[in-house]
Amino acid sequence: MAGTESTLRILRRLLASGLTARAERLLARLHPADLGPLLSALTPEETRTVIDLLFRQHRAADTLRELPPELLPQIFEALGDERIAQVVARLEVDDMLEFVERLPEERREAIEALLPEDKRTELEKARLYPEQSAGRLMTTRFLALDEKMTAQEAIDTIRASGDDQEAITYLYVVDEKRHLRGVVPLRRLVAAPPERTCAELMIENPIHVRAAADQEEAAQLVARYNLLAIPVTDDEGRLLGVITVDDVIDVITEEATEDMYHLAGLHDEDRVFSPPTAAMRQRLPWLLLNLGASFLVAYVIGIFERTLEQSVALAFFMPMVSGMAGNGGIQSLTVITRGIALGEIEFSSGLRAVAKEFGVAVGVGAVTGVVAGALAWLWQGNPFLGVVLAAAMLVTMATAGILGAAVPLLLKTLGYDPAVGSGVVVTTLTDLFGFAFFLGIATFMLDRLA
Amino acid sequence: MAGTESTLRILRRLLASGLTARAERLLARLHPADLGPLLSALTPEETRTVIDLLFRQHRAADTLRELPPELLPQIFEALGDERIAQVVARLEVDDMLEFVERLPEERREAIEALLPEDKRTELEKARLYPEQSAGRLMTTRFLALDEKMTAQEAIDTIRASGDDQEAITYLYVVDEKRHLRGVVPLRRLVAAPPERTCAELMIENPIHVRAAADQEEAAQLVARYNLLAIPVTDDEGRLLGVITVDDVIDVITEEATEDMYHLAGLHDEDRVFSPPTAAMRQRLPWLLLNLGASFLVAYVIGIFERTLEQSVALAFFMPMVSGMAGNGGIQSLTVITRGIALGEIEFSSGLRAVAKEFGVAVGVGAVTGVVAGALAWLWQGNPFLGVVLAAAMLVTMATAGILGAAVPLLLKTLGYDPAVGSGVVVTTLTDLFGFAFFLGIATFMLDRLA
Repeated sequence: MAGTESTLRILRRLLASGLTARAERLLARLHPADLGPLLSALTPEETRTVIDLLFRQHRAADTLRELPPELLPQIFEALGDERIAQVVARLEVDDMLEFVERLPEERREAIEALLPEDKRTELEKARLYPEQSAGRLMTTRFLALDEKMTAQEAIDTIRASGDDQEAITYLYVVDEKRHLRGVVPLRRLVAAPPERTCAELMIENPIHVRAAADQEEAAQLVARYNLLAIPVTDDEGRLLGVITVDDVIDVITEEATEDMYHLAGLHDEDRVFSPPTAAMRQRLPWLLLNLGASFLVAYVIGIFERTLEQSVALAFFMPMVSGMAGNGGIQSLTVITRGIALGEIEFSSGLRAVAKEFGVAVGVGAVTGVVAGALAWLWQGNPFLGVVLAAAMLVTMATAGILGAAVPLLLKTLGYDPAVGSGVVVTTLTDLFGFAFFLGIATFMLDRLA
Repeated sequence: MAGTESTLRILRRLLASGLTARAERLLARLHPADLGPLLSALTPEETRTVIDLLFRQHRAADTLRELPPELLPQIFEALGDERIAQVVARLEVDDMLEFVERLPEERREAIEALLPEDKRTELEKARLYPEQSAGRLMTTRFLALDEKMTAQEAIDTIRASGDDQEAITYLYVVDEKRHLRGVVPLRRLVAAPPERTCAELMIENPIHVRAAADQEEAAQLVARYNLLAIPVTDDEGRLLGVITVDDVIDVITEEATEDMYHLAGLHDEDRVFSPPTAAMRQRLPWLLLNLGASFLVAYVIGIFERTLEQSVALAFFMPMVSGMAGNGGIQSLTVITRGIALGEIEFSSGLRAVAKEFGVAVGVGAVTGVVAGALAWLWQGNPFLGVVLAAAMLVTMATAGILGAAVPLLLKTLGYDPAVGSGVVVTTLTDLFGFAFFLGIATFMLDRLA
């Protein structure tokens, strides 16, 4: 947001001079989504004052809701238990859950005890759903209509429900046991003759998701069928809540970040603004795993010590063989991982996808291998070195293509996240195989190379 | 979608036996979004028949709209110009544009000539907006209300407009010159007293986007402010169209794919199901660029030929130095690139982000460097080798951290896509620097190593 820096400066000056009334007016003019970046840059003292001012405007909850959740702990530190509880109590249950989970362990109980009874019950009920499930993402504030209601009665119900509800686009029709029967788009309700019943107006058997389903499933349904909201039911088909499209956008963005992060071996909470010590702790395991893998690779190279001694020029080209195969493997891996996430594998099949990646890898391996071989020959003046390099690149890149495609598909089939660990497995295996092949055929042709 | 395979089998059997009436009923039961995967698996002959059947049901356009656009050429091949023109004519203008662009060059003119006059004009107008702009993404079918209209009159207008429109959630209020004045959520209109005017009901100065703005800007506004649609205006603030949230979800998904793809050096249209020859053509430039970079690296290693000859064990650890730095660099690169895409940089600042990544890289470089050095000492029995390796890893990983953070931020500042080419620049520079440093200090301490 342009102007954040200057707004921040003004806000700080007002706070420092004790001009809280003017600071309050400034805050009132900003959208909750634009307040987040400001808030993250304040000192604890300033944060406290700003949250107090926002709370008076009934906007503290909305503002904190817009912050990246990774930033919440820093805000919580600046606030007292009382204030946090007051803010949490004003949130929808899905956001309430997210917040409470970010609270420091040692304060959580105390803050929850300060919540009103009904909020505590709501929270407890939501906790019964598995993490990252549709049940945790849904709002329980929605309007359910009776099948026998007329369009006019439905409109009267909406009028009576007040204006503070989340944007309603669909109205859900339930039977006397709260089983989901259908959906009436608000637009259709408005256009309908007033005496028409909901049963006549509704779209039957609407697309819905079970509360225990993964939030990703809910997001995919909304995206696939271009919905603005999706009803959530229990296993018996009773309506429990509604997931709105703004939450779906968050899930889609989050899942894309996770895929990207997992390919690079990053922890989900390792963000631009997260503290360096946390980032270090989170990156070390992956890097140590990679280190272990490189010792394995070093060991394999060590087997060919005599070969390297006799033709040290081979060492110049080692990074080329592993680098090219690594790049090719990551390309296949990225296409397949993203294809799985987007459901594009539906348009192909696992085996066809692996075969295609293999074919592509052979093609690009042949071209780059021949180019590399020719250049190596020219440079080192030894045609045999060129042949060894070309052959090694072709074979290693072909292997990388298969592995890049097969590893994520295999992980997926076994029920794991296809992106987690794929990178290190693919690059380590191609390195091992690539160096063994390159140095192996070099050993075989050593009298021509040395 | 589970069941796609079996539905496909049944469909094919019905088509093969000429039972088109039953095939038509089967198709009628499927949602357009579920028809896509079926369609992509059919032969040209079968595709033609199915499109004919869908066209009779007025669902051909909706079905093709749900296909990944990269699959369209394959479908077009199976269809005649007439049929394609009929399908295109039934699309909204944003989808029409996407379709026409995917048509083979040599058929485009003929097919456009077959479109009805008004559709052709609409298409021409949309083409005036830059590619990937908000103007190309918007629908021009929307309801604009007059400020003086009452709630009841507005509702009557909705009733009169029929049911075939895209889901309406917001109604836009314009003045007599079509300048955008405000927005009335449909829900608010329904709940309002019938005689209240739109001017009284509307939210003034609604968030909007200019037609020439990048589609990503429109998507970010919708995501940021939790909107269900965003109005598009010209430079004078006149209402031109509306972008709905389903299109925004597509943009968000597309942009995430692009970021991931660009980091791996992949072309946007290189998908799981795209033909292998196209994938080869698209991947070769990037791989050849990497090959060129590895020759530069090979040249630098070559400078240290004498060092390697005297201590060949150094070659065992070369992949470790470059691999660890590459991994660390890609981690920084991923955090920063994703942070830019998600606007998280707002919560930090470029310089702070680079400083943080540098700090983290020094931390993890020190830990992994010491571990690697100790293991190398144990294995090779030479403490000096351990020291050289540890120092090289620390320095190279620290450099990788800075580069991984600074390169995308620099590209972004210069107005380029931060993900494009970052990977090859970062890994090549760290390789060059890493090998030069590792082999350089090794040369300096050669009498202790050999």
